[in-house]
Amino acid sequence: MGSFPFHQDLQEIASSQLTKALDPEEFRKQDHMVIDFIADYYQNIEKYPVLSRVEPGYLKKCLPESAPYDAEPISTILKDVQDHIVPGLTHWQSPNFFAYFSSTASTAGFLGEILTTGFNVVGFNWVSSPAATELENIVMDWLGDMLQLPKSFHFSGNGGGVLHGSTCEAIVCTMVAARDQMLSRIGSENLGKLVVYGSDQTHSTLQKATQIVGINTENFRAIKTTKSTGFALSPEMLTLTISSDLEKGLVPLFLCATMDTTATTAIDPLEALCHVAKEYGVWVHVDAAYAGSACICPEFRHFINGVEGANSFSFNPHKWLFTGMDCCCLWVKNPSVLVSSLSTNPEFLGNKASDSKQVVDYKDWQIALSRRFRALKLWLVLRSYGVANLRNFIRIHVNMAKTFEGLVRMDKRFEILVPRNFSLVCFRISPSALISSNEDDEIGMVNEVNCKLLEAINASGKAYMTHAVVGGLYVLRCAVGATLSEEKHIVEAWKVVQDHAQATLNTYW
Amino acid sequence: MGSFPFHQDLQEIASSQLTKALDPEEFRKQDHMVIDFIADYYQNIEKYPVLSRVEPGYLKKCLPESAPYDAEPISTILKDVQDHIVPGLTHWQSPNFFAYFSSTASTAGFLGEILTTGFNVVGFNWVSSPAATELENIVMDWLGDMLQLPKSFHFSGNGGGVLHGSTCEAIVCTMVAARDQMLSRIGSENLGKLVVYGSDQTHSTLQKATQIVGINTENFRAIKTTKSTGFALSPEMLTLTISSDLEKGLVPLFLCATMDTTATTAIDPLEALCHVAKEYGVWVHVDAAYAGSACICPEFRHFINGVEGANSFSFNPHKWLFTGMDCCCLWVKNPSVLVSSLSTNPEFLGNKASDSKQVVDYKDWQIALSRRFRALKLWLVLRSYGVANLRNFIRIHVNMAKTFEGLVRMDKRFEILVPRNFSLVCFRISPSALISSNEDDEIGMVNEVNCKLLEAINASGKAYMTHAVVGGLYVLRCAVGATLSEEKHIVEAWKVVQDHAQATLNTYW
Repeated sequence: MGSFPFHQDLQEIASSQLTKALDPEEFRKQDHMVIDFIADYYQNIEKYPVLSRVEPGYLKKCLPESAPYDAEPISTILKDVQDHIVPGLTHWQSPNFFAYFSSTASTAGFLGEILTTGFNVVGFNWVSSPAATELENIVMDWLGDMLQLPKSFHFSGNGGGVLHGSTCEAIVCTMVAARDQMLSRIGSENLGKLVVYGSDQTHSTLQKATQIVGINTENFRAIKTTKSTGFALSPEMLTLTISSDLEKGLVPLFLCATMDTTATTAIDPLEALCHVAKEYGVWVHVDAAYAGSACICPEFRHFINGVEGANSFSFNPHKWLFTGMDCCCLWVKNPSVLVSSLSTNPEFLGNKASDSKQVVDYKDWQIALSRRFRALKLWLVLRSYGVANLRNFIRIHVNMAKTFEGLVRMDKRFEILVPRNFSLVCFRISPSALISSNEDDEIGMVNEVNCKLLEAINASGKAYMTHAVVGGLYVLRCAVGATLSEEKHIVEAWKVVQDHAQATLNTYW
Repeated sequence: MGSFPFHQDLQEIASSQLTKALDPEEFRKQDHMVIDFIADYYQNIEKYPVLSRVEPGYLKKCLPESAPYDAEPISTILKDVQDHIVPGLTHWQSPNFFAYFSSTASTAGFLGEILTTGFNVVGFNWVSSPAATELENIVMDWLGDMLQLPKSFHFSGNGGGVLHGSTCEAIVCTMVAARDQMLSRIGSENLGKLVVYGSDQTHSTLQKATQIVGINTENFRAIKTTKSTGFALSPEMLTLTISSDLEKGLVPLFLCATMDTTATTAIDPLEALCHVAKEYGVWVHVDAAYAGSACICPEFRHFINGVEGANSFSFNPHKWLFTGMDCCCLWVKNPSVLVSSLSTNPEFLGNKASDSKQVVDYKDWQIALSRRFRALKLWLVLRSYGVANLRNFIRIHVNMAKTFEGLVRMDKRFEILVPRNFSLVCFRISPSALISSNEDDEIGMVNEVNCKLLEAINASGKAYMTHAVVGGLYVLRCAVGATLSEEKHIVEAWKVVQDHAQATLNTYW
């Protein structure tokens, strides 16, 4: 505080001094410099340890205590990016990144994002930038076609799609819509009786959305799954849980069915679940965050059979459709329910187009008022690669995962824990590779060995994988999905696993 | 549906075919092309009508029914952007854009955004990219210093800041935190009793947040303001409203005090309001979305005097701190309350750094799990311009608004409706410019004339302004704030207003 000189005695400042902050020629020059910086980053990306090795608090030691008073040249700033920021990155675009689910960058996605940033329009309603709204309408219908979503989710079928930043926003919005629709029937004093359903494998985003929208957190049901059903939500268990809630006088509200769980890409049986939900008047949201992208390939589309029974559907092109962060596609069958819960109509936004009801005002389909022109990057990706290439990109990743799976199966010390559906391989050092007599001891020890193995792999800097615990078993996840990954990276990653497995096992013998 | 050939008979696809989607040399080439496209757009931006002239549904007629099956060259796509997208844009970066509040682009903000897009990391927790979290911590402390926020909002003072996309997200998160803190005291069965306070000038985002978090919408208080207090929220009215709610057995929860209302940049008296709120244990959030940026200038800082009594504070650098969409800074005094409401701890995100409690995991400070590395663009802006230039940029805009205000005052047909605080001028054709005898008729007619004037200005394509209605009076808003605006644009905009004013008035005589 008080660290900057007090400059109120203004010399007359020419307004042209400000416009230099967006001078086209300066813009051109500096941007070409930064584009080259990023291209060089991709070229050298394999030189960096995938998982950052910095210690907590490292950056504070590298940067000054306060913002500079005077301007600094872009070359100085870029040097700091290289010296201080890059070492603190975990390199999601590295071909050796196999953690979480990938965030697939691409040249076309990048181009779309920079066009969006360049135009910098705020398309909260149609009139504030008609192209932003209309391109989003069109792209959502295009994608709906590619996924073979039923007509009822398309604008042309009285449904419609919207781009959010994340699945959590999509679930918050649909849950609020479902909540208000239900409360308008049973009275708002019954908010405390509403119940939300998922499985113990459903993404934590469902729990978070439940917390946010004011539903009693005690009424959040994470129904137990088992290995025998591939960790998918059982329709019978759902029926039992709903029945038990009804007996208690509670009101079943919302079910999140997952197309591909984060831990193991398990697939909840959508058709049967929708059948149960329909019987009890429960809103079904389908979360296909990662593998929704795979449904553009006819051979994977069957995984969402039954989607016509759902109320809403979302997936994230930023995960596996080569569109940079952030981008979540949400379709709803009945947009008016969403709009009814999320609309506000302040005077300052009043305009004839909105009054005519002939346009979509996306501010009423989402949490925020402001919104970026996200449709551009999706449009660029769809056009620049075309459906044929995008399908092949997905298949290449799946094939690479098959390669990795095959390598694991050839090594008797390892086992594949759950069947591979897409490009995620869940594996671990098998109990048989360890000597133990007591079964209880064994689970703990096997988990520990696998945990140590993962740490060793990640510490090597040569690959980054993450873990899950399903049915009490610790499992390593190799999630193939970085745009730059090639067959050779898969083979090398497996070699890294093998090398460290031997070292890890040795410490137990 | 079924519009694409079924290609399951895969030829062997080399994984290198996919990596071309992020080939550094191709990336470089295509990006330089698009950077030039954007630079040319800025160079030519004054040639376009500011408010788009397209009709609803225009784009559907220009684009194919479905996504292309085969790849299309970037040159073809860019031609379509120029021919079909640009005409559908309302040009927020035009120097003749005076609508809403601006969304200030800058070269440095753009550079930061493209670095973010290039790295494409997902920094939900510290380990997933330490630099993303740590730079955000640092930049938020830097900015907190620049705004002279009390130490209690800084990380170094046990508070802390986080970057959201929008004010609505910031308010949803703080309201959820306030809600849960209160319910933990009085029991969750009392959710229906909680009350939220703002004024009839508070941004609609408060009402929306209230709807989202499950607070009874009947318990949302938009306290009436009047011209006599400059449309600011009166502490006495707040006290009265709270007292009345307490008498009804309701529980006052949350107050949104606005530093600069959207309609007229009115300033709620923060110090007095915090005093009232403290007495009743109400959480105070300060929404300084637009004019928060001005507080980096010592001469404007007094407008948020009293902020030390608030619980949370937010403003949007994407509005007036030369940082592209989207960027909202939120500070809280007690991050643990936020984290307690918004945290989930799924196994797959477990890691030693989080377990150590020595790091910030921003996933627990926001709605979504995933998050972009937004701190980069703010850091680039602060460094590339420095505090001195940023202050001058703000002052240039304020000075230009003073120029416009001066021009309005010199024309007897017009009046300034409310005092100008920053760079927004609220004006209208004065009743005295119209002939009428009946007072009731007059208000309607004056509003109508001003509404017609605004339509005529915007239809000219030479300027884009929007309106507000305060105290029943229709007012034109000239919000100076585009980065490319110079003194000459202000003078020309005023000429456009004058020209159309005469034509509009003529139709009434």
